[in-house]
Amino acid sequence: MPNITFLPQNITVEAQINAPLLEAARLAGVSVETPCGGKGVCRKCLVRILTGKVDVKSGSYTYRDAKENQVLICQSNVSDEDVTVEILSGLYGEEGKFDDVSDISSNLNKIAVNPIVKQTRLTVPQPAPLDGLSDFDRLKKAVKTNIAEKFSDIKIPLSVLSQLPIKLRKNNGAVKIFYYFDCGVLNIVSITETENTDMYGIAVDVGTTTITLWLVDIITGEIKSRKTDYNAQIECGLDVITRINYAQKNLNELRERVLITINDLIKIAAEENNIDYNKIYCASLAGNTVMIHLLLGICPEYIRLDPYTPAVFRPPLFSAHDIGIVINPDAPVKTAPSVGSYVGGDITVGALCTPLSGGENESELMLFLDVGTNGEILLGNNEFILGCACSAGPAFEGGGIEFGMRASKGAIDSFEICENGEKNEINIRTIDKEPPFGICGSGIITVVGEMFKHKIIDAAGRFTDKMPDRIKKDKKPYKFYITDEITISEADIDNLIRAKGAMFSACRTLLKNMGLTFGDVDKIYIAGGFGKYLNIEDAKAIGLLPNIPEDRIIYLGNTSILGAYQTLLSEENEKKVQEIADRITYIDLSNEAGYMDEYLAALFIPHTDSSLFE
Amino acid sequence: MPNITFLPQNITVEAQINAPLLEAARLAGVSVETPCGGKGVCRKCLVRILTGKVDVKSGSYTYRDAKENQVLICQSNVSDEDVTVEILSGLYGEEGKFDDVSDISSNLNKIAVNPIVKQTRLTVPQPAPLDGLSDFDRLKKAVKTNIAEKFSDIKIPLSVLSQLPIKLRKNNGAVKIFYYFDCGVLNIVSITETENTDMYGIAVDVGTTTITLWLVDIITGEIKSRKTDYNAQIECGLDVITRINYAQKNLNELRERVLITINDLIKIAAEENNIDYNKIYCASLAGNTVMIHLLLGICPEYIRLDPYTPAVFRPPLFSAHDIGIVINPDAPVKTAPSVGSYVGGDITVGALCTPLSGGENESELMLFLDVGTNGEILLGNNEFILGCACSAGPAFEGGGIEFGMRASKGAIDSFEICENGEKNEINIRTIDKEPPFGICGSGIITVVGEMFKHKIIDAAGRFTDKMPDRIKKDKKPYKFYITDEITISEADIDNLIRAKGAMFSACRTLLKNMGLTFGDVDKIYIAGGFGKYLNIEDAKAIGLLPNIPEDRIIYLGNTSILGAYQTLLSEENEKKVQEIADRITYIDLSNEAGYMDEYLAALFIPHTDSSLFE
Repeated sequence: MPNITFLPQNITVEAQINAPLLEAARLAGVSVETPCGGKGVCRKCLVRILTGKVDVKSGSYTYRDAKENQVLICQSNVSDEDVTVEILSGLYGEEGKFDDVSDISSNLNKIAVNPIVKQTRLTVPQPAPLDGLSDFDRLKKAVKTNIAEKFSDIKIPLSVLSQLPIKLRKNNGAVKIFYYFDCGVLNIVSITETENTDMYGIAVDVGTTTITLWLVDIITGEIKSRKTDYNAQIECGLDVITRINYAQKNLNELRERVLITINDLIKIAAEENNIDYNKIYCASLAGNTVMIHLLLGICPEYIRLDPYTPAVFRPPLFSAHDIGIVINPDAPVKTAPSVGSYVGGDITVGALCTPLSGGENESELMLFLDVGTNGEILLGNNEFILGCACSAGPAFEGGGIEFGMRASKGAIDSFEICENGEKNEINIRTIDKEPPFGICGSGIITVVGEMFKHKIIDAAGRFTDKMPDRIKKDKKPYKFYITDEITISEADIDNLIRAKGAMFSACRTLLKNMGLTFGDVDKIYIAGGFGKYLNIEDAKAIGLLPNIPEDRIIYLGNTSILGAYQTLLSEENEKKVQEIADRITYIDLSNEAGYMDEYLAALFIPHTDSSLFE
Repeated sequence: MPNITFLPQNITVEAQINAPLLEAARLAGVSVETPCGGKGVCRKCLVRILTGKVDVKSGSYTYRDAKENQVLICQSNVSDEDVTVEILSGLYGEEGKFDDVSDISSNLNKIAVNPIVKQTRLTVPQPAPLDGLSDFDRLKKAVKTNIAEKFSDIKIPLSVLSQLPIKLRKNNGAVKIFYYFDCGVLNIVSITETENTDMYGIAVDVGTTTITLWLVDIITGEIKSRKTDYNAQIECGLDVITRINYAQKNLNELRERVLITINDLIKIAAEENNIDYNKIYCASLAGNTVMIHLLLGICPEYIRLDPYTPAVFRPPLFSAHDIGIVINPDAPVKTAPSVGSYVGGDITVGALCTPLSGGENESELMLFLDVGTNGEILLGNNEFILGCACSAGPAFEGGGIEFGMRASKGAIDSFEICENGEKNEINIRTIDKEPPFGICGSGIITVVGEMFKHKIIDAAGRFTDKMPDRIKKDKKPYKFYITDEITISEADIDNLIRAKGAMFSACRTLLKNMGLTFGDVDKIYIAGGFGKYLNIEDAKAIGLLPNIPEDRIIYLGNTSILGAYQTLLSEENEKKVQEIADRITYIDLSNEAGYMDEYLAALFIPHTDSSLFE
């Protein structure tokens, strides 16, 4: 039997001739992601054959694949030769290219930093003979004397109590305590006898496709690290419905997968900054309802079953240890409130970046679109808020697109066609000017928008006869070559159309519900993991956004992480989010009679009713 | 190199000729207890040589050893032969013989069963479309409606929340919730959708030498199982001071060892009764201050350093999971309050069995002696309580005595010398009439008492010339043969004298402190793990108890487990214990000028001042 060696793990296994290469990888314990289920569609399982050869299903490789000796592992079988396989791409192939590049400076509420965890310096008197006071008794006395807030009792974790005798005697009783209030009780997180006052926290956007984590100095508000990676759950399904199905038998696996992603990001961020995990004293999580259920290990089954009732909208505070997040084990973890099965904490905290958080524009009528795999929309002002969600699929995050990728280094995020008489030229720009590696969500919008404006595709998203030198029609799906190696196919364009159609029709349905049109809307705020830029003109060209003046459309970036950051830093913001959540009326689109018609009408570029885009 | 095979583990290792056999055992990962530190004194490391031979230090084996092919592993070296060693005795050799045989019926407070964890049946309405209420929201509403007590908030463990959606839908929302109050918050421990109302709890006496655990039906109060085993910490030292020393480098090991003992006892008790661990909803622990520190993993160092201040006298409620006790992970664990470095929760809960808990005799002046490795004494009535502790050593629990054992099956607990003219006959009785296996604490008292009364030993505990056929004086320590195999040596008697001397002199010192004598005492209550009986006459004969009329001396049995049981079953008892703890004035004997003189004077049988025993 031929030997199959996997690199960089350097694990060799024997495999039967004709056995699937994927099987050999599993045997070797080498993780290869196949989000499409091994159908050869998602191209996330690309590997490089360094020596030997494998049998590849015909038609499953591209020009670039052939040139670089790459194959899709899911489309390859073991031949009679020994083979060395380099695991390279897959979703994690982009590792390290994931630094968050969004610009946040302009989109933050002005915050007075006031995190849930506080610190106080106090001096606990040294023990006196036979005074009947234990170390804990003297600590409690000192806390009661030094902390002004009212509390009914003091709780101390066993891990802190166990070290208390040493801490209280090291510095003549001078200690610093870190604590928070919950249910009227003062909870001690940590006690140190050093002068060190560092306090860190993490804000996490728990997305269906990607997870973004910020490591934050919660005294100054400074963001020490921004890290993003794909949610390791995507191997188990691309959208929330598939995840709920998967959870029926494998809830714990899903929980562990998302924890692995989060904890890996924490590890990288903490090590980069040389920060002790135990000094990360709190966490603020934002995610859609399903993702939060999965992270907490809560059965999500009934979210998708009539009457679509989640186990919890507002999870109480849990400790990091309870949840399985590797920071200070007794750190409180707050989770942004959800308001519906699919309108989650990602959008309630996101609303902090809009006039819904108060201020001078609070009376303006506003649409707030969080564009992601699970699209969420708020419509309202200081008088009312409606909220709904739609399933857009992962196209906006680079998922389900052959060369799709996250908004990170090397992603094409700008694309321009210059009609030069007979010859059309293409200008592209990539994030950080790295060599092009794929196309991010905003890139896909701009590519399709430009192609439509230049009539390279028609309203149905099919290639016309323009720029034929760039288009390969030898087999379906037909492909357009952006560079020699990177293509966009009609199948990719279909995915984008469905995604933008879902978002646009959801907005229309919400507006109709209130007897309004896009014309009545003062401002549209767009959120999503698009990176620094979103080409508004192209977003309008493809029909993702309505044709309203560009100055009324504001791109905010990833508001889920921005909101999680703001609630991490400030209890006042936390309260605001709870108020916003209280005010939202949840509209279930699947119960809205007109939604399906709206959706079907939106499956054209820009729309069946082109008068909407005049 | 010869092969050494250890049974029942069936692990074989190679060993050098002349290497200590103990080393081979450690190499094999086979645990052998050597509480005396390998000095050949404690005889706890007895093993049987099944095949081959080992070199044994001369004089380290007894007649019985030779007959049964037994050796002390610590006194044996590898010879040039392969050997099969059966690990048999050691402390765990008595396993299974450890069922608690004490009689409790008469020593309990009349209790109205009212444990900390309550249960309530309630019906949570099924989810309604778009009512904005999650499962947790509806549960909270139902709890608030159904439970009369006031509480500021409801806390739910993640493990319960994660199963909530399923539980609430199984039986049309009819569930049973198990909860307790802490700091004004209602804490949910468990939710079931079944009609099953079983509730269990455990009471644990965490002793320095032995651990006793009762598995209790907390609805009826019925004791389902009583289990006792040696505390696995004794491998690390026999008394609390040695343990504190050992904890300097190995605190976590000590914590794990006591948890292993407790969790093993729980396992045996739960399996015997076919009880699901998750239905054990609460625990009540009693132990001396050091043992509780070690169990909680709290640094005990400062308990033995001036000014002798423990980390905690009254540990707050922790969850079983926090502590590491394997019952329902969210079960609250209460720990009996300590009042001094060496006056612990074992005696404060034990006082529940005395008039200190109230009632018609509360004004009687009472001495309460908890006789154990750490001896604890209370003196008082409804007007005052003094408390002190002394280090008696493990003799009363069978430790440090060659044939010492726990009060369990096969232990000699009664011993009588019948002078028959020339010939003296010995009558013994064993617990459960099993063949004699060793001598328990009450047995040692009675053996020494009888020997003194019949002048076989003198006031210094040395053998006289009576019954020479029973006494072997060929080498020190001289031994008296109780049976052909079981002996008591002058060294054993010395240990007992030191133990009783410590207790007696501590009582005298407490009395003196109040200007009192034994004659002023109305009642003496004795507690300890002696089993069903304590021969009061013999206890007086050796000078453990003063010579006051026998009807004023009451033997209570193991009051630590009795008290833990009573606080497990009743919050009222819990309150009483806290009140008793509040009332105790702690006397530190090491600060009492007269104590050392008293102690030295008590190192005779019955006492230097024999007028005390007239």
